[in-house]
Amino acid sequence: MNRRITLAARPVGVPQESDFAIEEVELGELGPGEVHVRSLWLSLDPYQRGRMGEARSYAKSLQLGEVITSQTLGEVVESRDSRFEPGDLVVGQLGWQEQAIARGGALRLVPPGLDPPTLALHVVGANGLTAYIGLFDIGRPRPGDTVVVSAAHGAVGQVVGQLAKMAGCRAIGIAGGPEKARDLRELYGYDVAIDYKQDDVAETLRGESVDVYFDNVGGEISQAVYRRLAVGARIVVCGQVSHYNLERPQPTFHPGLLVVFRARMEGFLVSDHPHRFEEAAQRLGGWVADGSIRYREDVTEGLENAPRAWLAMMRGENNGKALVKVADR
Amino acid sequence: MNRRITLAARPVGVPQESDFAIEEVELGELGPGEVHVRSLWLSLDPYQRGRMGEARSYAKSLQLGEVITSQTLGEVVESRDSRFEPGDLVVGQLGWQEQAIARGGALRLVPPGLDPPTLALHVVGANGLTAYIGLFDIGRPRPGDTVVVSAAHGAVGQVVGQLAKMAGCRAIGIAGGPEKARDLRELYGYDVAIDYKQDDVAETLRGESVDVYFDNVGGEISQAVYRRLAVGARIVVCGQVSHYNLERPQPTFHPGLLVVFRARMEGFLVSDHPHRFEEAAQRLGGWVADGSIRYREDVTEGLENAPRAWLAMMRGENNGKALVKVADR
Repeated sequence: MNRRITLAARPVGVPQESDFAIEEVELGELGPGEVHVRSLWLSLDPYQRGRMGEARSYAKSLQLGEVITSQTLGEVVESRDSRFEPGDLVVGQLGWQEQAIARGGALRLVPPGLDPPTLALHVVGANGLTAYIGLFDIGRPRPGDTVVVSAAHGAVGQVVGQLAKMAGCRAIGIAGGPEKARDLRELYGYDVAIDYKQDDVAETLRGESVDVYFDNVGGEISQAVYRRLAVGARIVVCGQVSHYNLERPQPTFHPGLLVVFRARMEGFLVSDHPHRFEEAAQRLGGWVADGSIRYREDVTEGLENAPRAWLAMMRGENNGKALVKVADR
Repeated sequence: MNRRITLAARPVGVPQESDFAIEEVELGELGPGEVHVRSLWLSLDPYQRGRMGEARSYAKSLQLGEVITSQTLGEVVESRDSRFEPGDLVVGQLGWQEQAIARGGALRLVPPGLDPPTLALHVVGANGLTAYIGLFDIGRPRPGDTVVVSAAHGAVGQVVGQLAKMAGCRAIGIAGGPEKARDLRELYGYDVAIDYKQDDVAETLRGESVDVYFDNVGGEISQAVYRRLAVGARIVVCGQVSHYNLERPQPTFHPGLLVVFRARMEGFLVSDHPHRFEEAAQRLGGWVADGSIRYREDVTEGLENAPRAWLAMMRGENNGKALVKVADR
């Protein structure tokens, strides 16, 4: 038997716990080329909100009753794919469930020695790749550039700032609350930390000239940053989490600004850049192992608590990469 | 004596004729390295609106009483720069006046044989360079791409569509009125012409997948085009003329669209790309000479009529590149 969390109702505005259901179903048989995986850790991410709605987007919406999409770290129980053996740690898009049967081609092995292995769900996984490819390939920072990061304490943001510092940039992070702002400075090495709950973002940025804006949030915070662009600025649109719960988000940007500043605004999906994964993952893995990249994990125990933890993350209440621990190894 | 048109008042909202003054002043003495030019033709362009306001932009605002900025085609009367001789045709940023004294370095010779020489003010001048560099360097079209152009009948737009066709693209032009729409199809070779005064732009574009949007206007027309972007779209922000008379333009764009379509929106100023001028001007000159690029000029006679003609152009009433003829050669 397999416990799993499914979409019970399409959220209207801010999602509620009642939009999720927990159910127990039979797992089914293992076919040729398939792998049976026992989930250990689930990843919580803002993009999951998009899957729950019906709006046209880059990925198909979930149907009601479907398992919530997520990256999952698990252990192979049984394998009919020669690349995997029982006991292997793997990552795949397996969703919020205790067990899964997946095609071998949809799984990748966690690099041996990755410590802790949960890094494969963030710094050395999708979040870190997003930070690396978004900052370097889309933002293209040069030494001396000022790089501003919104949601700088989040799973992507915590990596972006540290990469910007490595690239010789001045890094300015925006996050909510004094603890997060302290982390930005002391743990992640940002030059300036802005607590948007306390500080006037546009005022704090007065006198700054923003060469790269790595934007995870959109909305008013971004509108404050847009006022401080440098000539030639690059705005990397990674996410717009402030919009995800709005039924009718209003436009927030003046394209004419891009003429005034001869600037570029570009969106990207990490999944479009698979040819860049190996380089990025190897370097990120090296940097996290030698301590050049630091991180925080925010762990919730128990599959059944995934919806509550995810809702808290969407409110910005997590303190580091939001993970759910489903089982011990 | 020199007649000239100056900024009498900063326009509030839609500019009025009373925002301009005509005055007569002495021309002054010719210093070393300077050239005395007699104006023949003035260029009318939407960017001049920006110079009349006080808002922060890429160029300095005009002061009250200053001559209105413009590109001017003129004839050299007297020269203290060895590169120029009396009788030479030159182009420079000389403004709306009958005569000017300019440094030789601020002038360029009209290529001999350019017929008519007014092409140096549009197809083989700033407008054509803007079209060429904006489309090819910023928009980067590939054969088979669908390229949409707003203000497609304007001085820049009329060139963009023809360049897009040369590059193997499907070209869709948006302009106001049935005559302009007919020109787009019959004179400039657009595959589809949309008359935004008659047609519902978003409806007409239903089923289209826009790879490149060359945007001169912004506002509602652009919002209709944004709904039809292709994955990987490039939005070239050349101008936002629908905003230029608004005191407080509202935001019109959702950055999150750029994630959904993994798209890029980029602004540019042709003056930032001087290393590209020679290639562009040579090719544009060749194409206009052999008939591959066609154009219309909308000529108004008399310096004193420049404000009225410019106001009409800002309302979209011109039929081709708006020029003022100041004097015969």
